[in-house]
Amino acid sequence: MIIYNQKLNAYNFLTDFINTNKYSSIVILCDTNTKKYCLNNLYDEININPDIINVIEINDGEQVKTIETSKYIWDKLLEIGCDRKSLLINLGGGVVSDIGGFVASVFKRGISFINIPTTLLSMVDAGIGGKTGVDFGGVKNIIGTITLPKMTIIDIRYLETLNERETVNGYAEILKHALIKDKNHWEDLLNCDPFNLNYSQIIHSINIKQKIVEEDINEQGIRKILNFGHSIGHAIEAFFLKGNKNSIIKHGEAVAAGMIMESYISMQLGLLNSNDFEEIKDNIIKIYGLIEIKSSTFHNILEFLINDKKNRNNIFYFVLLDGIGNATFNVEVKNPLVLDALGYYSKLNIN
Amino acid sequence: MIIYNQKLNAYNFLTDFINTNKYSSIVILCDTNTKKYCLNNLYDEININPDIINVIEINDGEQVKTIETSKYIWDKLLEIGCDRKSLLINLGGGVVSDIGGFVASVFKRGISFINIPTTLLSMVDAGIGGKTGVDFGGVKNIIGTITLPKMTIIDIRYLETLNERETVNGYAEILKHALIKDKNHWEDLLNCDPFNLNYSQIIHSINIKQKIVEEDINEQGIRKILNFGHSIGHAIEAFFLKGNKNSIIKHGEAVAAGMIMESYISMQLGLLNSNDFEEIKDNIIKIYGLIEIKSSTFHNILEFLINDKKNRNNIFYFVLLDGIGNATFNVEVKNPLVLDALGYYSKLNIN
Repeated sequence: MIIYNQKLNAYNFLTDFINTNKYSSIVILCDTNTKKYCLNNLYDEININPDIINVIEINDGEQVKTIETSKYIWDKLLEIGCDRKSLLINLGGGVVSDIGGFVASVFKRGISFINIPTTLLSMVDAGIGGKTGVDFGGVKNIIGTITLPKMTIIDIRYLETLNERETVNGYAEILKHALIKDKNHWEDLLNCDPFNLNYSQIIHSINIKQKIVEEDINEQGIRKILNFGHSIGHAIEAFFLKGNKNSIIKHGEAVAAGMIMESYISMQLGLLNSNDFEEIKDNIIKIYGLIEIKSSTFHNILEFLINDKKNRNNIFYFVLLDGIGNATFNVEVKNPLVLDALGYYSKLNIN
Repeated sequence: MIIYNQKLNAYNFLTDFINTNKYSSIVILCDTNTKKYCLNNLYDEININPDIINVIEINDGEQVKTIETSKYIWDKLLEIGCDRKSLLINLGGGVVSDIGGFVASVFKRGISFINIPTTLLSMVDAGIGGKTGVDFGGVKNIIGTITLPKMTIIDIRYLETLNERETVNGYAEILKHALIKDKNHWEDLLNCDPFNLNYSQIIHSINIKQKIVEEDINEQGIRKILNFGHSIGHAIEAFFLKGNKNSIIKHGEAVAAGMIMESYISMQLGLLNSNDFEEIKDNIIKIYGLIEIKSSTFHNILEFLINDKKNRNNIFYFVLLDGIGNATFNVEVKNPLVLDALGYYSKLNIN
């Protein structure tokens, strides 16, 4: 259930929901940033007995999305005395909802949780669809569950707290939704400023994802198309995450690069024409620039790709574009073509 | 799906199942004992390409049912190169199926697993019903999921490898199933030797549990009665687990004590008559003897009870016996009555 604060007062709805379900305790999970910038707003908006509200704070950033942080949160939940009728509210970006959702879905074999995404990325992607997880052994989201939150509240006022890098981080998923499912939306986006998206464009993008998820929650088929850009994107992200901590790239930046390379592969396999490919590539580079990927690291990135959840038997299964607005999944792609795409991308220049 | 090897050749069935589902790799999880005593039998029975079979070995005993051991197994699964089409076979007792089921249910957001219980306890309880989990923060099974195995194979030949203590460990759950649901079976059990159970008695006990689980897999109602003896039982087990490693008691021994105390509470609340209570108590003591519980430790045991998954708002919700063969759940029990039961039990003498 997605509640848009701009359509109805989501917080009244949340208050009623909590009271009706008689939760024994409410725990708000936030990170350093959302504790500082978003928590007071939430306190102001909800009307709940403060005695049953507790706050757990974790550091911000992908680096904390680990089993170790999960253990820290479970310890806190035990300290608070949470039982099966406790509710966890994940107030934050994708890291908070990913780890919070995971922690909740296995604590006492599953307690309820609600997502209140505070970043564009988590509004249009991580906060909806029920994928939870933490990174492990250098592999992104490798330990997790598919468990739907009881509710996701979309309150775009939180977007005012984001800097430009954080905004384009989420914008990559909006571009992705358009590329895999909605050519008109793609064209619409080409004419707009990613730093000044209007409300209806965000809702439109959420709806694209939501419809796909509803059709195939357990990702047996069509849901896989949401992974466009994420096969190579995740591998790049994991590679940088494991490497130099100072050069960590954002999820959306890695996905942007992944979308260029996976579009390139789509073109090489005759699925995407070169005009469309150039349009995709140029527009993504205009916003994201290019990530420097040395050819000496290609084999490391391939290693991460092998451990990607979507691949089986050491064969890569990609989501590719069959024209803009159309995606096809389970396409076998061999190593040399991935290396070709990495080589192509790494030699691109910003004009 | 439960497959009884004595009814049809379960291993042919397993071989067909693996071949039909085209699993990319098979991983057998075993502990030190089952690797030594049961693995060769399994190899002899199944007819699978050995190249896709891998073995992960963990130590035996409840002490290894931790997040740390889970991380060890996930690391091994990554090393092996397991993907979403891998299959985990849990060959062992309750510890192996509990942790193996948990590890599988969250690895890459869930891979398939099969249980081959090798102890009486796991045949009649842990290996069926889909509860998975590990201990954390001193609380039993606090981190886990409810995920059904694709198949459970009951092969009573494994029981020949058990010593007496391990046999009565499982027998406690058989007594429990009779006490909560089947007075005739209880009377039948009183006249038999727990060390020489016949095959049909084991199947009968499994069927009692299986029917209850099918009715209420997520334990919203009737499934709770399977927790009879486990509220105080788990608390005692967790208390001993945290304490002196040399005095660790078995799950079934703790549950046996728990059943006496929870029957005592049932009697105190007027649900169970004193004749039935005496019959339960005497027969359990005849097999299990008594655990020494010092009155100075009662408050520690209560602490563990507070963190039990079944309790909410610091109120204990017990499963009690409404006569032999009938259980009732969600009965509020206050601290003093639990203390009374602990006091009663600790003063019992073996006649």
